[in-house]
Amino acid sequence: MVDRTQTPPITRVLVANRGEIAVRIIRSLKRLGVETVLAVSSADRDSRGARMADKVVCVGPGRATESYLKIDTLVHAAQATGAQAIHPGYGFLSERAEFARACEEHDVIFIGPTAEQIEQVGNKLEARRIAGEANVPITPGGPVETLDEALAVADDIGYPVLIKAVGGGGGRGLKRADTRESLIQQFDMASAEALSAFGDGRVYVECFVTQGRHVEVQVLGDGKDVLHLGDRDCSVQRRYQKLIEEAPAPHLSDALRKGLHQAAVRFARHIGYRGAGTIEFLVDVPREQFYFLEMNARIQVEHPVTEEVTGVDLIEAQYRIAQGEPLPWSQNDIQVHGHAIECRINAEDCDHDFRPSPGRVTQAYFPSHDGLRIDTHIEAGAMIPPFYDSMVAKVIAVGQDREQARLRLRMALDELVLEGVKTNIALHKAILETPEFTQGGVDTGFLGRYLAEKPSLQNEARREQT
Amino acid sequence: MVDRTQTPPITRVLVANRGEIAVRIIRSLKRLGVETVLAVSSADRDSRGARMADKVVCVGPGRATESYLKIDTLVHAAQATGAQAIHPGYGFLSERAEFARACEEHDVIFIGPTAEQIEQVGNKLEARRIAGEANVPITPGGPVETLDEALAVADDIGYPVLIKAVGGGGGRGLKRADTRESLIQQFDMASAEALSAFGDGRVYVECFVTQGRHVEVQVLGDGKDVLHLGDRDCSVQRRYQKLIEEAPAPHLSDALRKGLHQAAVRFARHIGYRGAGTIEFLVDVPREQFYFLEMNARIQVEHPVTEEVTGVDLIEAQYRIAQGEPLPWSQNDIQVHGHAIECRINAEDCDHDFRPSPGRVTQAYFPSHDGLRIDTHIEAGAMIPPFYDSMVAKVIAVGQDREQARLRLRMALDELVLEGVKTNIALHKAILETPEFTQGGVDTGFLGRYLAEKPSLQNEARREQT
Repeated sequence: MVDRTQTPPITRVLVANRGEIAVRIIRSLKRLGVETVLAVSSADRDSRGARMADKVVCVGPGRATESYLKIDTLVHAAQATGAQAIHPGYGFLSERAEFARACEEHDVIFIGPTAEQIEQVGNKLEARRIAGEANVPITPGGPVETLDEALAVADDIGYPVLIKAVGGGGGRGLKRADTRESLIQQFDMASAEALSAFGDGRVYVECFVTQGRHVEVQVLGDGKDVLHLGDRDCSVQRRYQKLIEEAPAPHLSDALRKGLHQAAVRFARHIGYRGAGTIEFLVDVPREQFYFLEMNARIQVEHPVTEEVTGVDLIEAQYRIAQGEPLPWSQNDIQVHGHAIECRINAEDCDHDFRPSPGRVTQAYFPSHDGLRIDTHIEAGAMIPPFYDSMVAKVIAVGQDREQARLRLRMALDELVLEGVKTNIALHKAILETPEFTQGGVDTGFLGRYLAEKPSLQNEARREQT
Repeated sequence: MVDRTQTPPITRVLVANRGEIAVRIIRSLKRLGVETVLAVSSADRDSRGARMADKVVCVGPGRATESYLKIDTLVHAAQATGAQAIHPGYGFLSERAEFARACEEHDVIFIGPTAEQIEQVGNKLEARRIAGEANVPITPGGPVETLDEALAVADDIGYPVLIKAVGGGGGRGLKRADTRESLIQQFDMASAEALSAFGDGRVYVECFVTQGRHVEVQVLGDGKDVLHLGDRDCSVQRRYQKLIEEAPAPHLSDALRKGLHQAAVRFARHIGYRGAGTIEFLVDVPREQFYFLEMNARIQVEHPVTEEVTGVDLIEAQYRIAQGEPLPWSQNDIQVHGHAIECRINAEDCDHDFRPSPGRVTQAYFPSHDGLRIDTHIEAGAMIPPFYDSMVAKVIAVGQDREQARLRLRMALDELVLEGVKTNIALHKAILETPEFTQGGVDTGFLGRYLAEKPSLQNEARREQT
């Protein structure tokens, strides 16, 4: 294992990711004077990230399982190129304890938490146990082994309930049962899916908060101390996939917000967390209650909104922590100013169940002006391979208040040009204009209801785009 | 005259300018839901601004004297298109009292100060008088009518001195005399140049502070109250033309900084200033002294650095003030966070005395990422006409501290691509790497010395660009 207190400065980092986050990481590292080696699949040889990195190593063909998910290849690539550390980005291997452990075993610094911490928070039951110990509220419910146990738990806490995979996360393997019959019907399937998706068939049943909002708290830990960087609201979701995120979460009472922040810090402190992480909560705003959902032990897609309102470069913070530096701030140094909103622009076909729309981008224009930040790896001529996530850009607007950020974002989307592939830009524009979003504080069911009620939207979206 | 307290909301604005500032103004007005009419010369019909505006009016051929400087045509264009107000931007007619007066007389709101205020601060002697009344330090010196008077003043205050045009500003018509002989030699020429440039041959002589820095304070007034938005340092100048600006000014003592802010507010309050304005000072840092230089009664090129550190949209503020709204903040609401630096990218040939390099932009790539803002009207295929200012983009980086901003700016310039015309990008990169700039707080003579000492730079600059 690497002794973090003794490590020399990290002068070269292997970036084990692609797309916008590879570009994002390379930018921060370059600014710090750190050399970057980008591990690419053969589908990403000509990407913007590949052109920005000091060195590029091809680690396999296009399919992620043969490239971005090959632990041995990536660790070896770091060693072969003299990189002392690996930044895993998000997705891919970023939350795979085996990867962090393989790094540790080969004296390569994993820019992230310890393998043990990834395991602790990755196991949903273990995470719930930690939350309990740290005095962080969890949703009523618990692990179940049989349908009978599941029914007993559900009868106890009341319907609707969620069936969740112990080994899962990010909405995968999640099922909702509104009635006893529905639970009976879905239980075996949930368990089978959990097994196939995560190699672990165990599930648990928990209370489903119907009017809940998804609010999360960004934390940074150096293994000794932990501080938070405020909250984000990520309630605009389609099938548990976040679409729009903002910081701070609108319309929370000071007491509720403070409660969330303190709970997140308690959780992370309880495990001596090291690195950047996010504690996700389900918030019942009318009742002023919140429940621990899970912890993400990595940088998140939506980290820019926090950066924009706090002024902290989270990638730089990750790098410094990995190098063994203590947190350079006390909690009072972190102040939230203004409001930031992010739209995830995906290359997908909103007319056909949001299926991915890979292909070549024929035209691209990203506006650049005050209060606007666009994190992207795309430019005219760029190829969007079919192998990966469909996200092509994050458009982030910041303003003195939420309405100013919303208007700036709305206008940036009007100016943005992305042709050659289908995108969800028109859907974003429509959402930003809804009274619910404009008012702020929608629950996680908002987008589903909106899409169900407005079948014409997707056609409008298409018309506007073409 | 328009009674500002009675005016209905301004729903349509004629933008009487071009280039990046036209784009900048249109963006803020659009966000406010205000319609925009852009007055263009025939050379700017296809500009980005023209495509963004709700309506475009051609006001004449390419030469500014036949289009952007035609007062009657512009006021008429506003009336004909139903615009209740005109935003003059910077340069062109922005500080011409006749223009503000023509607007007032035709019931068109001039987005800026009153004609009287423009006259007051435009006349350098009058401005010095106001400064004196407002207890704002002015440089030793005064108006002179004959060479004998000039020599008497110069003998009194000591050499070197500056000969300045009473009606001038922005470095135009400025002459430096280091000796009695030099003053004798230049006096008549200075007066003749002042007459031809400003229609007013009067000059004055003032003390030249050799190690001075150019620090200015942004103010906003609503005709009743005035507040400041902190300071900017614009000491990186070539022949009195600003090249790099930053906020806040580095390495000022708290007392000196506070003194500047308070002096600026006193000056603007003394004339009941309305609108956005800048009070420029020459600062003698070792002696902790400062002297009033002039007031710019308009939005300035370098306004983005202030916006980035205060979060205030200055164009929006100008609009609201013009509409008769009182300032929405008290001084305590304005807080400066972080540090911002701006590079003015000009289409000019650094190898040949910085002469303009108009033409077609064949390739353009503007990076967009965290801590970066680029204000520009340029894109691939854009034509840079020979008639106007050579500035094509402003690259603004913001960071938690000056060094982070500098590194972000340096990297953005590395990524930026502008081909088809010659630019000063390589010069900016070189300046950002000098020990003097990195340290911060250079005086206004820095760039001249740097260019004189490094004759090879311009060749390097050229090589890097091609």
